[in-house]
Amino acid sequence: MSAACVYIGLVHYPVYNKKGELIATSVTNLDLHDISRIGATYAVAGYLVIHPHLAQQRLVAEILHYWVEGYGAEYNPDRKQALQGLTTVSSLAEAIGLIERNEGRRPKIVTTDARLFPNSIGYCPLRRKISTEEGPWLLLFGTGFGLDRQTTESADYILEPVWGRGEYNHLSVRSAVAIILDRLLGPSFLGDKEN
Amino acid sequence: MSAACVYIGLVHYPVYNKKGELIATSVTNLDLHDISRIGATYAVAGYLVIHPHLAQQRLVAEILHYWVEGYGAEYNPDRKQALQGLTTVSSLAEAIGLIERNEGRRPKIVTTDARLFPNSIGYCPLRRKISTEEGPWLLLFGTGFGLDRQTTESADYILEPVWGRGEYNHLSVRSAVAIILDRLLGPSFLGDKEN
Repeated sequence: MSAACVYIGLVHYPVYNKKGELIATSVTNLDLHDISRIGATYAVAGYLVIHPHLAQQRLVAEILHYWVEGYGAEYNPDRKQALQGLTTVSSLAEAIGLIERNEGRRPKIVTTDARLFPNSIGYCPLRRKISTEEGPWLLLFGTGFGLDRQTTESADYILEPVWGRGEYNHLSVRSAVAIILDRLLGPSFLGDKEN
Repeated sequence: MSAACVYIGLVHYPVYNKKGELIATSVTNLDLHDISRIGATYAVAGYLVIHPHLAQQRLVAEILHYWVEGYGAEYNPDRKQALQGLTTVSSLAEAIGLIERNEGRRPKIVTTDARLFPNSIGYCPLRRKISTEEGPWLLLFGTGFGLDRQTTESADYILEPVWGRGEYNHLSVRSAVAIILDRLLGPSFLGDKEN
């Protein structure tokens, strides 16, 4: 399991807004921090923040500079370690190209969505695939009101929504990344001990 | 499982700062939103924000007012639903008293910590206890550099730290709440299907 090569991508464009229009969302500081820390916890190969706008890419670069090279790195080395895994790219195509250059193979793409699709895959089958099939893998998470339909439908797999206990499924993207990585890459203690 | 009565508490005092001194931390807007949404997803009986300072309690009240009764409630009813589960209390004693009045029984207290203690309990045993023993339960999460030792040691159970793949365990409290509730209350699909 520990060798599985998984990248995560946070998509700021193309995603939907509340009205169902395609937009680019703004970068959120805590998405950078929280998701980098989750990525470090689950030893992902990289965290790709996907944003087409130069001004937003520069904002991310400025935040990273403070924590990776500036005073933040000295003040909190754990945060430096986490944020070192973050790279900004302009598009999904650029993300795929970067992974292909790093790993020598094109990644298999998994999209996540709060809705269920006819061809959605469950956590257990995907966990098994990731641990047994050759990677790399790219898990995509949408900001705003979710990934555009074309990105979702062109993926290799669409992961089932996160359900807890009941009907409510309006988690923040930060929480969804935490739960999904734990389900796919976390220790399988429940399976090991409960049965 | 669905009937288990679980409250979550976010402790702002007494917690440690970086130097190991006991302090009260500031309220963080996204802790209110993200953790309320996680609480709604896992159908907790209540989310208690524990802060002794009146000014901070008023800040929480103002944010809640906007989302539960103000324009936010109309703009985003899902957020209203989540934040309706949030209550501010001044101390752990007040949190326990509130649960006792609501449920007719004193809660069993579980603390969470990024460190391992000799009497730490694992996720699987605690999940089984929650699903089979009578509640209510109160899961406590510390802000800052974690819950003070006295609170931790006086709890009924200390939950094992969250480990992912590797050595890094510096998650945000928001991420820790997401992963821990999923492990304790989420669907047991891994156990069901993998074995």
